[in-house]
Amino acid sequence: MKSNDKEAQMNDVINTIREVDQAVGEQAVTYIDTLTKPKGSLGRLEELAIEIAQITGEPFPRVSPPGVIVMAGDHGIAAEGVSAFPQEVTAQMVGNFLQGGAAINVFARQIDALFKIVDIGVAQDLEGDGLLQRKIRYGTANFLKEDAMTREEAIESVLVGVEVADQMIKDGAKCLILGEMGIANTTSSSAVLAVLSGQDISTLVGAGTGISQDRVLHKQKVIQEALDQRKPNPVDPIDILAKVGGLEIGGMAGAMLGAATKRTPILVDGFISTIAALLACKLCPAVKDYMIVGHQSQEPGHQVALSLLGKKPLLDLGLRLGEGSGAAIAFPILESAVRMINEMATFSSAGVSDKE
Amino acid sequence: MKSNDKEAQMNDVINTIREVDQAVGEQAVTYIDTLTKPKGSLGRLEELAIEIAQITGEPFPRVSPPGVIVMAGDHGIAAEGVSAFPQEVTAQMVGNFLQGGAAINVFARQIDALFKIVDIGVAQDLEGDGLLQRKIRYGTANFLKEDAMTREEAIESVLVGVEVADQMIKDGAKCLILGEMGIANTTSSSAVLAVLSGQDISTLVGAGTGISQDRVLHKQKVIQEALDQRKPNPVDPIDILAKVGGLEIGGMAGAMLGAATKRTPILVDGFISTIAALLACKLCPAVKDYMIVGHQSQEPGHQVALSLLGKKPLLDLGLRLGEGSGAAIAFPILESAVRMINEMATFSSAGVSDKE
Repeated sequence: MKSNDKEAQMNDVINTIREVDQAVGEQAVTYIDTLTKPKGSLGRLEELAIEIAQITGEPFPRVSPPGVIVMAGDHGIAAEGVSAFPQEVTAQMVGNFLQGGAAINVFARQIDALFKIVDIGVAQDLEGDGLLQRKIRYGTANFLKEDAMTREEAIESVLVGVEVADQMIKDGAKCLILGEMGIANTTSSSAVLAVLSGQDISTLVGAGTGISQDRVLHKQKVIQEALDQRKPNPVDPIDILAKVGGLEIGGMAGAMLGAATKRTPILVDGFISTIAALLACKLCPAVKDYMIVGHQSQEPGHQVALSLLGKKPLLDLGLRLGEGSGAAIAFPILESAVRMINEMATFSSAGVSDKE
Repeated sequence: MKSNDKEAQMNDVINTIREVDQAVGEQAVTYIDTLTKPKGSLGRLEELAIEIAQITGEPFPRVSPPGVIVMAGDHGIAAEGVSAFPQEVTAQMVGNFLQGGAAINVFARQIDALFKIVDIGVAQDLEGDGLLQRKIRYGTANFLKEDAMTREEAIESVLVGVEVADQMIKDGAKCLILGEMGIANTTSSSAVLAVLSGQDISTLVGAGTGISQDRVLHKQKVIQEALDQRKPNPVDPIDILAKVGGLEIGGMAGAMLGAATKRTPILVDGFISTIAALLACKLCPAVKDYMIVGHQSQEPGHQVALSLLGKKPLLDLGLRLGEGSGAAIAFPILESAVRMINEMATFSSAGVSDKE
């Protein structure tokens, strides 16, 4: 398929995304006030139930089983010494995901999630039961020196995400959690955020998964220099993704678009996941209403990214791991919200007196 | 049994409570740093795993199944028009708990909890499968006019809590959630908090489950007048409980003591539950380290109570329902913490390179 065909295919996906259903949301609002509890006393849980009703178009929605998709890809920028971990850790962690020993495996099991790990661009050949092979290239290029990938590859990464989300929803997932693994992907994400926010890089870049203050300054310098060289177009999300982004970031953004086409709630994870969410919203603003943010990450840029997205996270537990782990930890709150609306008795059904 | 015997029995319980196990906590700290994730990247979850290891004395602790105990009792002070709901709602809600239609039933099912509802002082006779009958009296007296209960009854309520917690732990509960139902119990709890904190009542009293601003002022006036009349002794938690407390509040405090004797983590709920926690700590300061606070309630006094307790809640979702509901919603975070330590691979077991 030629590049224009792929871009047309992506636009077709975007064009099938509809606004969320306000009318069903109103039904939920009215019904929640009949449940045996003081009005409004379940706070954010009530808001969540209403949002999920709007997203799914169902007044009595379900979110289980959730589906966890972990996209793995490498970053050429790792060669600049921006990460605490060597690049081979991306591939090693994919091995850990396949063995079930990583944090996201543990939390995905806890919530009985469908689980898929996708090689969308790891720098070495990988195999293993349960690995979905969708490698677009062996890692991105070092974006200090050249574009991370071509425009065609960026679009391809989005389409892989759409496909994987589609399949997971066909397999029964009622809510999608997008996670990632990619050494140096906070560097790529910070670069994307600098373009989207227009903010100075020094306010956005932190310790990632754990680097020294010296290395933080180096990371900031690398990103600033790369942005000066690459000059991504702030109004073109595909251009940003191609020039300073990552394959797994494109894949996550695509999976979010895919979820929205199927009226499936998206539970956004931490910093990288929120950057993918911002790119998805730039491609299609209506996707935003399909998103719920799981947690506030410790990465300084996350706060900026969340205010661009206009979303308040459910949890603030000082997490900074990625993989989708924080979203998986937050998922039971969504489950509580839908159980509230599906299972609680009403004042009349329970024979309880309402407020005087 | 005579009153002095009961007081001696309570003191025996208190004397069996030990400090948490710092050495096992140290083991957990060391082990967590070998897991396949950047050090410290699971933030509060890591702290929780360490706390639970200290509490249980197990380096690889479990918190499932949790046990939910809901204590129901009425309050004579309801006659002063301090609540949004009529007093008979306490009994009606017990019926709802027994039918499985209340919020706490829904969230207890979600976390596969053992569940027990205790009539420790509802103002009318109740029956029903699954109801534990431990009525000490038909509701407390109106503490604007006389002491809420006798000192003996207050001690009895604590001992009921100890007994119920003991039994639930024998039945297999690995973590206790204490909930309550009692129309007007935010009034009683606010009075207890005013004594414990020494703060002016106007800073502590809010809308409870939903009353108008006029009624908030009335509620403050009632409490202030009652405190002037009753003069509870701030250093004697049983005196406070007897003069302005509630039977379910004493029961919850007792269940917390019972949990601590069995090295079982206590997941504290909202305002009422935190007041019970403060009374338990006043009876036995070592109990504090057995407590984890589930959520920040919207009730204004909760912030004050939490700072007296010196604990930071896990969730802040704008809840103000009680029943143990917020703690049950927070429970999966504890489960995530112990799964992390029990199930994650180590760098060496997974063949993943640690930090450069």
